[in-house]
Amino acid sequence: MQQDYRVDPYTVEGSVNYEDLVKKFGIAQIDAKLKDRIKKDAGDLHFMIRRGIFFAQRDMNWLLDEYEKGNKFYVYTGIAPSGGMTIAHLLPFVMAQWLQEKFDADVLIEIPGEEKFLSGKDPKLTLEKVQELAYADALNIAALGFKPAKTKMFLTTEYAGVLYKQAVRVSKYITFSIIKDAFGFDSDANIGRIFYTSMQAVPAFLKSVQMGKNIPCIIPLGVDQDVHFRVARNAIDKLGYYKPAIMHSTFLPSLKGGAKMSSSDPDNTIYIDDPKEVVAKKVNKAITGQQSTAELQKKLGGDPAKCSVCQYNRYLFEPDDSKLAAIFDGERKGTLLAGEHKKDLADKMNNFLDQHRKKKEGLKDRMDSFMLRD
Amino acid sequence: MQQDYRVDPYTVEGSVNYEDLVKKFGIAQIDAKLKDRIKKDAGDLHFMIRRGIFFAQRDMNWLLDEYEKGNKFYVYTGIAPSGGMTIAHLLPFVMAQWLQEKFDADVLIEIPGEEKFLSGKDPKLTLEKVQELAYADALNIAALGFKPAKTKMFLTTEYAGVLYKQAVRVSKYITFSIIKDAFGFDSDANIGRIFYTSMQAVPAFLKSVQMGKNIPCIIPLGVDQDVHFRVARNAIDKLGYYKPAIMHSTFLPSLKGGAKMSSSDPDNTIYIDDPKEVVAKKVNKAITGQQSTAELQKKLGGDPAKCSVCQYNRYLFEPDDSKLAAIFDGERKGTLLAGEHKKDLADKMNNFLDQHRKKKEGLKDRMDSFMLRD
Repeated sequence: MQQDYRVDPYTVEGSVNYEDLVKKFGIAQIDAKLKDRIKKDAGDLHFMIRRGIFFAQRDMNWLLDEYEKGNKFYVYTGIAPSGGMTIAHLLPFVMAQWLQEKFDADVLIEIPGEEKFLSGKDPKLTLEKVQELAYADALNIAALGFKPAKTKMFLTTEYAGVLYKQAVRVSKYITFSIIKDAFGFDSDANIGRIFYTSMQAVPAFLKSVQMGKNIPCIIPLGVDQDVHFRVARNAIDKLGYYKPAIMHSTFLPSLKGGAKMSSSDPDNTIYIDDPKEVVAKKVNKAITGQQSTAELQKKLGGDPAKCSVCQYNRYLFEPDDSKLAAIFDGERKGTLLAGEHKKDLADKMNNFLDQHRKKKEGLKDRMDSFMLRD
Repeated sequence: MQQDYRVDPYTVEGSVNYEDLVKKFGIAQIDAKLKDRIKKDAGDLHFMIRRGIFFAQRDMNWLLDEYEKGNKFYVYTGIAPSGGMTIAHLLPFVMAQWLQEKFDADVLIEIPGEEKFLSGKDPKLTLEKVQELAYADALNIAALGFKPAKTKMFLTTEYAGVLYKQAVRVSKYITFSIIKDAFGFDSDANIGRIFYTSMQAVPAFLKSVQMGKNIPCIIPLGVDQDVHFRVARNAIDKLGYYKPAIMHSTFLPSLKGGAKMSSSDPDNTIYIDDPKEVVAKKVNKAITGQQSTAELQKKLGGDPAKCSVCQYNRYLFEPDDSKLAAIFDGERKGTLLAGEHKKDLADKMNNFLDQHRKKKEGLKDRMDSFMLRD
């Protein structure tokens, strides 16, 4: 099979074929039957699951078996700071917050200071700078509505007193060969990068260590992160803990189209801290699936799949399915014109970001209740 | 040059050619001129330096330049627990304690819980077991006479909150290629072992980080450990800190002869916790350089270089050079018979171990003042 795309934690390129990815990664679709089961247990189904934005999984049926037996799970996810947080980064956290609410789940959030520092892509990214970014990210995450009593966040560099010992136990079961194959590193990779996946693995079984009994865990993540846990799940299993369940999201496209919104392409990326006018300006330049003129658009209609404005509504900003259908329909039939379409999205975004800023304001002096430190 | 011996942190085999090692490792002899200089600055010269037991060094002249300018150094050394502590393990600590006394130096002692665990030589060695051994080692070390106010010890697994962040900075400058060449690891090495040298590097510049200015450091160690710092010194230099000076010891031979006393050969190894009778019994079976009968010994004499009893006097138990000369002389001329020779050593050992046990008894409830934890 010809591969015209690439998905790993350090590179997402080309037109991602998610069906192909499911086979390649050995993961399973979140199919209709599983959706029904989640809906039954949660009393609801998040639109990101309904719409296939979270499209794949590992061991979610086992997780729900346990849940239905009264064995509650916790949720683990994270973010590696490298620049400002974008709306694309929100996906796993929105899902984690929903899981917390619907399943009364504890949440652990790891903010690895070292990952992007060690990748060396940005030579100016010092550990001190990463730390600053990490605290900004933590506030952005908390403002999504996590419960302080059930949500703990930590920087790996500040919680290594707990994490490192467990990472050592994981690392004993992971060879350089495994890392080389999984991440495509060669012998010139630095030894910090090579070790790092062990640190990312720890929160997936840390509650079990701390409670002295096995506790199920689920990790919502972007599918590019799956490889970390393909490697770690084996090691965690050998240590005698439950392998974490995983749910995988597709990538929020770039405003100009393309596989993934990237914080390294600021013009086509919405940062959570972008001011109103900047959001409006960026959205105004976004790619739509529409024809080149209003005339043609009215006549021929557009393609929602190619329209980043439609997709942003689908991914994040229009939770109501019937309203989303109307937008897609308008795009398809040519009744919704580009200007109007973009203004509607920019307004929704700015409304969300405004609310978010207010929530941050209320939380910024109370972050200590979320943070774990050695 | 034919190599009929091997020296690395995981294997010491064959008849070690120390002169050859100096060339191979790119280190320098501790020559007569340097000995004079140490004596001048210390006001004394430790018998282990006089006798060439500490035989080689890196950057000690620079260290003494700094010292003479009023820029005091600190001492860093360590031990990786794997079984009971033997008298061979004492060498770097005896030197560290002497340096503390003569140069009023602070001392940092790292006890890596993970090193032997990750090497996997002993599959029964859990991290919990290592931790237990580590505390026993710490007490044995403290009892050598370190000043509590100027001596800090830590387990890497308990002080990772401080160490890991700095290890990450080191690791960025060390590739797998470097590790492969330095330690002989292949791609089947686990990623914990590959990373570990970064943790061993940290205390060599940690005081500089903590004080916010460069502070010279010297590391007394067994020459098998040099490779860790061959690798680390480059990385530490790139981070902008002083490269640590190093002083290297030769290996205390096994009681049966052979390059190195090893804790994996208990019959030919004296453990610090060995009871009196066990010490006497082991020494009684030791190899001497003597002839096969008392008759022949009186006639032909023996060879102190091949006599482990002579060597144990030289390494640890006879600090007085003229008394040592008398022992060597007796061995050479055949006037000192094996039984007498061995009894004298066993008595000295048991005397030392007795005193040591008493010191441990007095310290065992006061170890908290030595230990650093996150």
